[in-house]
Amino acid sequence: MNKILRVNMEDLSTKCEEVPAAWAGLGGRGLTSTIVAEEVIPTCHPLGKNNKLVFAPGLLSGTPAANSGRLSAGAKSPLTYTIKESNAGGTAAQLLSRLDIKAIIIEGIPKEDKWYSLHVDKDGISIHEETELIGKNNFAVIKALEERLGKKTGILTIGTAGELKMTAANISVKDPDSKIRSHGRGGLGAVMGSKKIKFISINGEGAPGVKIAEPDKFKVAARTFAKALLDHPVSGQALATYGTNVLVNILNEAGGLPTHNFRYGQFEGHDKISGETMHDTIVARGGKPKHGCHAGCIIQCSQVYNDKDGNYVTSGFEYETVWGMGANCLIDDLDDIAVADSLMDDIGIDSIEGVVMFAVAMEAGIIPFGDSKGILRLLREEIGKGTPLGRILGGGAGLVGKTYGVSRVPVVKNQGIPAYDPRTVKGIGITYATTTMGADHTAGYTIATNILNVGGYVDPLKKEGQVELSRNLQIATAAVDSTGMCIFVAFPALDIPECLPALIDMINARFGIALTGDDVVNLGKYILKTERKFNIEAGFNNAHDRLPDFFSFDPVPPHNLVWDFTGEEIDEFWNF
Amino acid sequence: MNKILRVNMEDLSTKCEEVPAAWAGLGGRGLTSTIVAEEVIPTCHPLGKNNKLVFAPGLLSGTPAANSGRLSAGAKSPLTYTIKESNAGGTAAQLLSRLDIKAIIIEGIPKEDKWYSLHVDKDGISIHEETELIGKNNFAVIKALEERLGKKTGILTIGTAGELKMTAANISVKDPDSKIRSHGRGGLGAVMGSKKIKFISINGEGAPGVKIAEPDKFKVAARTFAKALLDHPVSGQALATYGTNVLVNILNEAGGLPTHNFRYGQFEGHDKISGETMHDTIVARGGKPKHGCHAGCIIQCSQVYNDKDGNYVTSGFEYETVWGMGANCLIDDLDDIAVADSLMDDIGIDSIEGVVMFAVAMEAGIIPFGDSKGILRLLREEIGKGTPLGRILGGGAGLVGKTYGVSRVPVVKNQGIPAYDPRTVKGIGITYATTTMGADHTAGYTIATNILNVGGYVDPLKKEGQVELSRNLQIATAAVDSTGMCIFVAFPALDIPECLPALIDMINARFGIALTGDDVVNLGKYILKTERKFNIEAGFNNAHDRLPDFFSFDPVPPHNLVWDFTGEEIDEFWNF
Repeated sequence: MNKILRVNMEDLSTKCEEVPAAWAGLGGRGLTSTIVAEEVIPTCHPLGKNNKLVFAPGLLSGTPAANSGRLSAGAKSPLTYTIKESNAGGTAAQLLSRLDIKAIIIEGIPKEDKWYSLHVDKDGISIHEETELIGKNNFAVIKALEERLGKKTGILTIGTAGELKMTAANISVKDPDSKIRSHGRGGLGAVMGSKKIKFISINGEGAPGVKIAEPDKFKVAARTFAKALLDHPVSGQALATYGTNVLVNILNEAGGLPTHNFRYGQFEGHDKISGETMHDTIVARGGKPKHGCHAGCIIQCSQVYNDKDGNYVTSGFEYETVWGMGANCLIDDLDDIAVADSLMDDIGIDSIEGVVMFAVAMEAGIIPFGDSKGILRLLREEIGKGTPLGRILGGGAGLVGKTYGVSRVPVVKNQGIPAYDPRTVKGIGITYATTTMGADHTAGYTIATNILNVGGYVDPLKKEGQVELSRNLQIATAAVDSTGMCIFVAFPALDIPECLPALIDMINARFGIALTGDDVVNLGKYILKTERKFNIEAGFNNAHDRLPDFFSFDPVPPHNLVWDFTGEEIDEFWNF
Repeated sequence: MNKILRVNMEDLSTKCEEVPAAWAGLGGRGLTSTIVAEEVIPTCHPLGKNNKLVFAPGLLSGTPAANSGRLSAGAKSPLTYTIKESNAGGTAAQLLSRLDIKAIIIEGIPKEDKWYSLHVDKDGISIHEETELIGKNNFAVIKALEERLGKKTGILTIGTAGELKMTAANISVKDPDSKIRSHGRGGLGAVMGSKKIKFISINGEGAPGVKIAEPDKFKVAARTFAKALLDHPVSGQALATYGTNVLVNILNEAGGLPTHNFRYGQFEGHDKISGETMHDTIVARGGKPKHGCHAGCIIQCSQVYNDKDGNYVTSGFEYETVWGMGANCLIDDLDDIAVADSLMDDIGIDSIEGVVMFAVAMEAGIIPFGDSKGILRLLREEIGKGTPLGRILGGGAGLVGKTYGVSRVPVVKNQGIPAYDPRTVKGIGITYATTTMGADHTAGYTIATNILNVGGYVDPLKKEGQVELSRNLQIATAAVDSTGMCIFVAFPALDIPECLPALIDMINARFGIALTGDDVVNLGKYILKTERKFNIEAGFNNAHDRLPDFFSFDPVPPHNLVWDFTGEEIDEFWNF
């Protein structure tokens, strides 16, 4: 009864298709990666007519399961040239699931130089020419569309960065407060821009809703699952109180907080940008220290950050953004970082790629390290206006490095390395090197076990056990990314025995099936291998599963370690 | 008795080393590729301290053999990330050979932010701090150095493009008329810039000269070889009369002259930019239709092109440059193209990458197609001044495409595809796809057999025989690139039975050895496989041996053919 909506932008036609049997058990990342691997020629130009952009809610999206409202977007990435899945909160996943839509597949490029929008409702999907909102940024688009189509409308949109096909452009998703969540990584906003789609609006009126095969069983499992989320100290307390930015002080203490474009592992100004300081600032200014990115989120790691006068600045203000513009750019002004976060959301730039990029721009001498106002100016005057310099910056860390001849560029497969130094937290280095996505901490978050003592403990400073740790986490994450669950469910799943079975029980009750734990592991393995196969056919080999060479010869204080894995040791990752 | 000069820019030390036995039989490309493959970590950053820049004259350079004065430069390329060999005429190869120098190997990056020069003479090599010529372009550098060091000084230099590490930057070599020849392709000027070396000066005074083991045998062979060069209709007549630009009308006639960024195979304005028109213009303005790029050249395909008032504009004004700014940018003003050629030489930009790039810049809307004055402005005001836009353009066609989100970008391994449409001249498409160098017509110039009926004939419009043709030519070319010979000796070598044996006899007489034809073929195979191995370890696989996808779905008039080789068919290339 589920359906696939297929849009051909070349002839401006749409189709509603039945779900092929092979895709029936898939959702989220499992489905987007399967569709991209089956339908996209791996060597195609990611901004050309042969790439496809796929959206798929997770298997549990639209159900009452806690934290299940994530939407996956997939394509060949114009940033990494790998297959890409990027998931986000917001309201779209739940609306699509309730409309019984398993995936949207967008193909081709319009023949005419016009802009379009897509509209999804209970009757299917339609294409409309768009002129009014072209050149507008995300907050203006959401405001205008809520006026045009109603407050409850789900919205996926690109800012000017996506229109200009900047390879750090993201796809924004409206959240329950009409703010923004992002399919951040991998430049999928540029793919949407290449297809000349400014936004996708979703009207959930008359939606049939999600049918649950065994409602009682589901209810029991959902309760157990929610309890586990709330009982775990990370998902139930730390993230709820301080948000992800709780990590600034933790990583600084561990010596793994990349500072001054990955020259040091500790930042003198860490206190000024920490989660603790952020929490107190938010409370003092009448913001919200707790906030959910989608309905049904019980972790509430988001927040509402106000300025000194109590006016809204940003939400979804994450550790990786604070780290990157903070420690890594030698900036300790949290207010400026918050403004930059808001500007990146508005223009539609991935805030992780953005901040890694700004440190490389400083390395290139475009602005000096520490210049927070310079970053705000580059965002407003260059990236936001699409000047030549703005296009370079909007292309991400790798493009700035190439254009300015910088060799100290922290990227893997051309995607910026986030907030955890791989020389000091070696497990995450294995994830950066091996994930099919280009450097991405969420692909196998070893910080859990290396730093937070979740799921046991593997010494972050030593090589032993890191490959296995990253492998297990990447397999599990690929499966979790298929459920529509937020990645933070991994914390209780690793520590609380009832949690993972409850998650599987919810899937089984939803569909009336009988998956086992092994089935879930096999799903994760299948996804990774499917993605890896695509990447090999797109031109990747083991030599791409490496960190930039400066990590190997430049020791990072305070532990003064280098990245010392051999290629052979890294390649063991794929031995499953 | 030969020596290797090794320069370490990190500690500013130099060494004179004996030639290892394994390198004794190698010269030119064979030697640079061997050294790079042995000493450079394939995954290193090409502008970081682990890359090395190697110069090696050919095996016959410095002897009286006709057309033997080419110098090879090698490194990991910052443009393609492959191994790279780029060879050039000029006076340096012969000076180095007569100084008994087999290769110069430059390692490391200075710790201090200072610029340097290297000076080579009979006593070895020395490092000197340089301030006066920093920020100067190539013609000014040559003029100043001739004043400083004497008219006979050999010079290798980078312009501002190389200083700024633009990835289309070349290394310029002074020719016998104090003009410029270029190690054009692959951005080796950026590698020299990363090592903070502005120029290398060579003083040949007191040089021991090249000792020939069997002088009489050498003389006989050299005479036979020179006669073959002069007897062949291409090397003896066509190139001597019209230069390489004789090809405009030939390729236009064949429907393989890429026009309007590879949309068409014929150009309405072809007559205005043809070799015939160029010849008549040169004669009418008192220029020189014949000119050699190094002493001992008897083909004389270069020329001296003057403006309307009879003032010097440029020399070494090649078909690929005329094609690229002409047909491919829809420009039919030969004078503007000549000025651009001179500007690219002066700034130090590869004129092939430059012109392929300008068509992509037009595709991106930076300037309109046909705007020749716009190109001159971009060269003078943007690239020449190193503005953000100039850096994008100076990064070559691929970087412009990435920065502006263009999908119609004719590159292989990020290097611009030159002057022959691979859909219409299918053999050259195999060369573009498979060469270890990124798209490079000189790596296996199938135009000889596809278009010029040299070495037999293989129908350019059909797939049959192209892989074998390209393979044979690439093997032969790799060997020829090791001799110091100009690539155009291939024309008589393919058609005149005495030519190749005479070339081998010269090598044997020079060194007192007994190479056979099989040995030469094996040398070519060894070089290709050595380069390929480096590339695989640097992260390349078969998926990189492909043309951009638009060639597969966009037929090119007048033959309306697409690029229709399967991956498997292309991969047959490496079956040797």
